[in-house]
Amino acid sequence: MRQFVVVGHDVPTDPDFSLDDLAGGAGRLDVLCRCVNSALFLSHDIREDVEVHLVLADEVTVRIDGSALRYMSPDERNIASLVRKALEAKDQAIGHREAESTPGIYVSKKGFEATMDGIDGTVVELHEDGDPVVDVEPPADPVFVLSDHHDFTEDETATLADAAEERVRLGPKVLHADHSITVAHNYLDTEGFTDY
Amino acid sequence: MRQFVVVGHDVPTDPDFSLDDLAGGAGRLDVLCRCVNSALFLSHDIREDVEVHLVLADEVTVRIDGSALRYMSPDERNIASLVRKALEAKDQAIGHREAESTPGIYVSKKGFEATMDGIDGTVVELHEDGDPVVDVEPPADPVFVLSDHHDFTEDETATLADAAEERVRLGPKVLHADHSITVAHNYLDTEGFTDY
Repeated sequence: MRQFVVVGHDVPTDPDFSLDDLAGGAGRLDVLCRCVNSALFLSHDIREDVEVHLVLADEVTVRIDGSALRYMSPDERNIASLVRKALEAKDQAIGHREAESTPGIYVSKKGFEATMDGIDGTVVELHEDGDPVVDVEPPADPVFVLSDHHDFTEDETATLADAAEERVRLGPKVLHADHSITVAHNYLDTEGFTDY
Repeated sequence: MRQFVVVGHDVPTDPDFSLDDLAGGAGRLDVLCRCVNSALFLSHDIREDVEVHLVLADEVTVRIDGSALRYMSPDERNIASLVRKALEAKDQAIGHREAESTPGIYVSKKGFEATMDGIDGTVVELHEDGDPVVDVEPPADPVFVLSDHHDFTEDETATLADAAEERVRLGPKVLHADHSITVAHNYLDTEGFTDY
């Protein structure tokens, strides 16, 4: 399985934001929606072997399981509406247990560290000083960890450094998180740019 | 320079659509907005060596020049609002001449064939039966041509077959147009996955 953890530092954890202002009042939820899109969508298909974990304000995590997902369109507004529904279901999530808001979407009151603790797989940090991705053998169950438009905080950086088994870079340019996800998928789809 | 031509078959050519319904009433303009995003945005930067040509309903072309662009945010709603402004300026575009609607964005009454005729560079068709992109030397001035959620029409396919010097595939999975643009950029950024 491929997993993507995306940290949204400014995204509200209550559902009282407008879908008309994702890039403003919703704390750049647009960035996270594009990450969900890149992680899950193929042409006329969904990647069923993918899970996305959106960590919101280090308080709430929305997990999206491609194998169970229903009712999602690839546009930012639709994805944001499903995240908002997850936040509406937040109070049904007790402790670190999850509540399912719509098929394949689960909400829990977990911050970044608890979310990372709960994930199995080889954690890969994307970093501009990492090894070129072509020099790294594609892991069987990679977990890519990305941040929104902000850098990781000091605490997040420390948690990630503890968890990460690889630190890679995807190219000479620094990319948006959603573009990085697309490149990571292509690297895995092609077995490290060898199998087309 | 890198150029991307994206054909939107159902996008309205009049500006009387709502930004709240890009995936519906605006004929999947959301797809084209994500293509613009993938083509132009880097982390905290714009790709100045890129032009995007959005061909709408084979009637109108909106050209976006990364080197002159101002006022664009990466979210679908903002990009769609700038496309709508371009459509508001359409009647200032006489014959095949362009009118500038906002800095770096130009509108003209050109369909697909006229747009392709006006573009210099090596036309690359992305096709699932094409050669693996790793087997193709990156062209100096590539022009990638992509379609929205529909296939190219018969006429478009013929025009493209005439113009294309390369036919490549980006991997074993069929990707959305915007994801294809991201992979094409990564292939060019890394000189064919060799330079990180």
